[in-house]
Amino acid sequence: MLTKNLKNIKLTDNVFAPRQAVAVTSTLPACIHQCEITGRIDAFKLNWKEGDPNKPHIFWDSDVAKVIEGLAQLLMIHPNEALAKKLDDIVELIISAQQENGFLNSYFTQFEQGKQWDVLGGNHVLYCAGHLMEAAVAYYELTGKRNFLDAMARYADHIASVFGPEEGKHKGYPGHEEIELALVKMYRTTGEKRFLDLAKHFVDVRGTEPNFFETVEQIPRERLIILQAHKPAREQTEADGHAVRALYLYCAMADIAIETGDQELLANVYKIFDNATQKRMYITGGVGTSGNGERFTYDYDLPNPDAYTESCAAIALCMFAKRLLEHTNDSKYAEVLERVLYNNGISGISVNGDDFIYNNYLEVRKERNIQRTKWIGCACCPTNYSRYIPQLGMYCYSENNTMLRIDVPAAAVISNDSYEVAISGGYPYEGNVAVDIVRGGTFTLALRIPAWCKNYTLKLNGETQNVKTEKGYWILNRTWQPGDKITLDLEITTTVVYANPMINADIGKAAIQRGAIVYCLESVDNESVPLPTVRINPDAEFKLSAVEGLPEGTVALRFMAEAADAREDLYSTEPLTWHPVELCAIPFALWQNRGISDMQVYSAVKQ
Amino acid sequence: MLTKNLKNIKLTDNVFAPRQAVAVTSTLPACIHQCEITGRIDAFKLNWKEGDPNKPHIFWDSDVAKVIEGLAQLLMIHPNEALAKKLDDIVELIISAQQENGFLNSYFTQFEQGKQWDVLGGNHVLYCAGHLMEAAVAYYELTGKRNFLDAMARYADHIASVFGPEEGKHKGYPGHEEIELALVKMYRTTGEKRFLDLAKHFVDVRGTEPNFFETVEQIPRERLIILQAHKPAREQTEADGHAVRALYLYCAMADIAIETGDQELLANVYKIFDNATQKRMYITGGVGTSGNGERFTYDYDLPNPDAYTESCAAIALCMFAKRLLEHTNDSKYAEVLERVLYNNGISGISVNGDDFIYNNYLEVRKERNIQRTKWIGCACCPTNYSRYIPQLGMYCYSENNTMLRIDVPAAAVISNDSYEVAISGGYPYEGNVAVDIVRGGTFTLALRIPAWCKNYTLKLNGETQNVKTEKGYWILNRTWQPGDKITLDLEITTTVVYANPMINADIGKAAIQRGAIVYCLESVDNESVPLPTVRINPDAEFKLSAVEGLPEGTVALRFMAEAADAREDLYSTEPLTWHPVELCAIPFALWQNRGISDMQVYSAVKQ
Repeated sequence: MLTKNLKNIKLTDNVFAPRQAVAVTSTLPACIHQCEITGRIDAFKLNWKEGDPNKPHIFWDSDVAKVIEGLAQLLMIHPNEALAKKLDDIVELIISAQQENGFLNSYFTQFEQGKQWDVLGGNHVLYCAGHLMEAAVAYYELTGKRNFLDAMARYADHIASVFGPEEGKHKGYPGHEEIELALVKMYRTTGEKRFLDLAKHFVDVRGTEPNFFETVEQIPRERLIILQAHKPAREQTEADGHAVRALYLYCAMADIAIETGDQELLANVYKIFDNATQKRMYITGGVGTSGNGERFTYDYDLPNPDAYTESCAAIALCMFAKRLLEHTNDSKYAEVLERVLYNNGISGISVNGDDFIYNNYLEVRKERNIQRTKWIGCACCPTNYSRYIPQLGMYCYSENNTMLRIDVPAAAVISNDSYEVAISGGYPYEGNVAVDIVRGGTFTLALRIPAWCKNYTLKLNGETQNVKTEKGYWILNRTWQPGDKITLDLEITTTVVYANPMINADIGKAAIQRGAIVYCLESVDNESVPLPTVRINPDAEFKLSAVEGLPEGTVALRFMAEAADAREDLYSTEPLTWHPVELCAIPFALWQNRGISDMQVYSAVKQ
Repeated sequence: MLTKNLKNIKLTDNVFAPRQAVAVTSTLPACIHQCEITGRIDAFKLNWKEGDPNKPHIFWDSDVAKVIEGLAQLLMIHPNEALAKKLDDIVELIISAQQENGFLNSYFTQFEQGKQWDVLGGNHVLYCAGHLMEAAVAYYELTGKRNFLDAMARYADHIASVFGPEEGKHKGYPGHEEIELALVKMYRTTGEKRFLDLAKHFVDVRGTEPNFFETVEQIPRERLIILQAHKPAREQTEADGHAVRALYLYCAMADIAIETGDQELLANVYKIFDNATQKRMYITGGVGTSGNGERFTYDYDLPNPDAYTESCAAIALCMFAKRLLEHTNDSKYAEVLERVLYNNGISGISVNGDDFIYNNYLEVRKERNIQRTKWIGCACCPTNYSRYIPQLGMYCYSENNTMLRIDVPAAAVISNDSYEVAISGGYPYEGNVAVDIVRGGTFTLALRIPAWCKNYTLKLNGETQNVKTEKGYWILNRTWQPGDKITLDLEITTTVVYANPMINADIGKAAIQRGAIVYCLESVDNESVPLPTVRINPDAEFKLSAVEGLPEGTVALRFMAEAADAREDLYSTEPLTWHPVELCAIPFALWQNRGISDMQVYSAVKQ
């Protein structure tokens, strides 16, 4: 899972590749611009004075770090001189803010000096450090220049001089996890095991007794779960608390368990993943039900209009799923990954690339006046998109010189020292996947057969294969010749999907899914029908259709359904009566790209 | 609508009368005790010093005022020497806190002196004044003593010297309405029109431009709606903003419109009531959907697990409905009143009378750990029950020497100078209503025929009547003789109730109602069935049954339904499958009187 390989994966599909194209022209320039005009970049000049606008804030460094991490990764696939120059300048400025002892934080160097380790539950200082480390790794992967990486190694060493299991050292750990996974990245990039050790320390100490946050920082016991500090992190087996913090922690736990061969920890990580995705995940791949603590709550608590489902949490779930997929080669993780990628994963960013939304509700009424905005004061989501969009290829494919694993067969060209392979076809809207060996070599090719597909045909050089799968993948190791061709024809049907009946919000309802795409109804396409009153018929014929105002190639669905007859009474003993209506559904990921609309994923379903 | 008439109405039914009995032994003593131990009563000694516990809070006076208002009203129906002495003592203490100029507020006399009129949007000073006025009226009605009433008249005059339309006077108005309806009560009790004028001024000026709260107190425009200050109060036609504030305002608007014959204002008040109860009210009679601002939101926004539905808001809806019922004699208002009375109206207080809950959700899972408590820091709900429970008779009956209107025929004895009438029977659980004239006289008797009842028989002295109703009431004016008897046999059926299909939270679902009682499922009665998975059958036979741990006479319902078969998948294309289950439903008003349970009002319904 090395993002340096991003340059080997060039997406050419019609869902993700256009997002990356607008990242060059829109997303990244917009996020850099916002970081500039809000003072986030200037904060590293360390010269803010009383009376100046834009007083630096404790977590601004993380925003800049995520943007430049994303910028470095975007430049791996879309080289751009002007943006590369901008990147160098920002990196130089950041490095210039580093203190003698290695500390680097634009807020605590200027304000509350010396207090940076005092309120770890809320001050985000280690979180900012982690994001700077991730940015440094990306910058090094892009440029080969060690300046930023070395600076961050010094910062990590400084942190290691403060925190650790040794007597006399600070026994705290971050309130917002992030540095743990970043330290593993530092270790993987530099080979310096001390970074892995520090990451492991932060995980090992988390939630142990006497509880640091409770006893030192006076955080009430019932709030500890929000910080994943209610019990030892190593003993946790459910997805709990603030969703983004939780998932960043689980990523680190997975990384550390894998790097150290810690099977006990890994077993718990698997349990957490299962809990998160089999009990606490929306059909869209969204997680983090409640806005009160931005958190996971309890099993099957998945209300639709109140789905908090922060965009960052979906991104973090991709990060987590990818790690376990890499380690296991089990398509169970790719199934979740794909669900997020095509649904909640891109619903928080507009098609034009510079309108963002924090929450990915599954039901919205116009009256709530929820709309995308150019920036968000708490800018974690826009800045996470800055790096997630460039990384999309890495979430679809895994490659090295001896292996190509096709997890999500979005059209792309994969090339490395050993081979070049072109994947084409209209996935995810069409099921015609072709894999052409452009430049041959000896390597293992693994091709996922999506679990949602019941009928498919796989041919190798025109010959239909009797497919046996291993953990959901068709796998063939051989010396591939240029001109070798695999075709996978997946039957993509449109079906209604029923939620587990323990989800009371959805009982009596169903969603519509076609292949990997979850659909929604928007009132802009269905102006004559009050959406709440809709009842869908599982046997309806769903006709593929184009729709205005959405990207070319988008497949909308037109179908007959029913709507309840209007009535005056708020409550009545009379059963609802129905009349036929024609509806148009669009991919959930594309909601609210045409102004404010009513929207819903679930509708009543005919039984 | 004079609460002094409370003494004329003695409830003897098995729902409300027991609540009043425990009010004597439990609710009122508990609330007085809590006011004592939290310092709320001592606050009126005006001798708090730095270092003392229980620093007075800006809205504590309102809590004490509501408790003594309720205590005075309770003593009208349940005389009690010890409680009467306690009442006198508290009243004396309160009066002793009055300042030379008439001002009386335990917080602003001791703290932030002279700043009481500076932050009206949030400081609750006029709200506290209003509750003290209501308490003074109740104390006068009980005792005939003018001391408290006169003190509050001087306070009202002081307020009138500060606020008013005259040049140079303060142009503000309360952020939390209450004083408006209290001033009307002061007017009705004393006959002093200047109190009505001040009430009218506060309504007339509210929300007018230039907007006081926006321009003087810098409240953002989008927040003005929470205070009903987003447009002139007189022009409002929908139920908006903080539900309790809103409903207290609407009560005052109704009072003022009726007192002044202002038909234009009255027309808007009717529209507001219709909007509140035909678009924004839960089946339980709860209102105020959202916890964000404790507020009404928009039409048909009625989610179940997130139903904020503050207990005070249900009480305030009773107050509003009662006023319009008094003015119109239209049972449309009694229908709403009855819905609240038997459901959300008493669900916030435990059967034992001293455990309270702020929110009356329509769906709860154990994991939320929601439970009743002995007191609530923001004590508006317990203290509102202190006065609501004693007032229940007034919400069932309206009487004066020439009229007896039976709105809700809970068993009772009604007596005044003209007549004595005994109402008996098992209402609301049984439909056998008997009205016996004990002491005769010439008066109009109006008897509501509940809208939920499709079949009934009304007999006068044994003779079946061919019933004609006026606005939902059977009305007879005559000279009644002792021994005259009316019997009304109402057929009470159990039915499933469908919400308006615009309520997306409920589409595909139904609730169970029997007569006036809305039922819920609690897991304590249905331990083998995961409640979210239940599907009810509209054609089920609902058998009346007793249930352990609830008050004698409570009618539970036992019936066959289905539950979805358990499944592992979170999302599946396979339709749910079902197995039969026997369920037990109890009145929603009695939920969580037996510990923490899963609970739901709505379940999926077989179509």
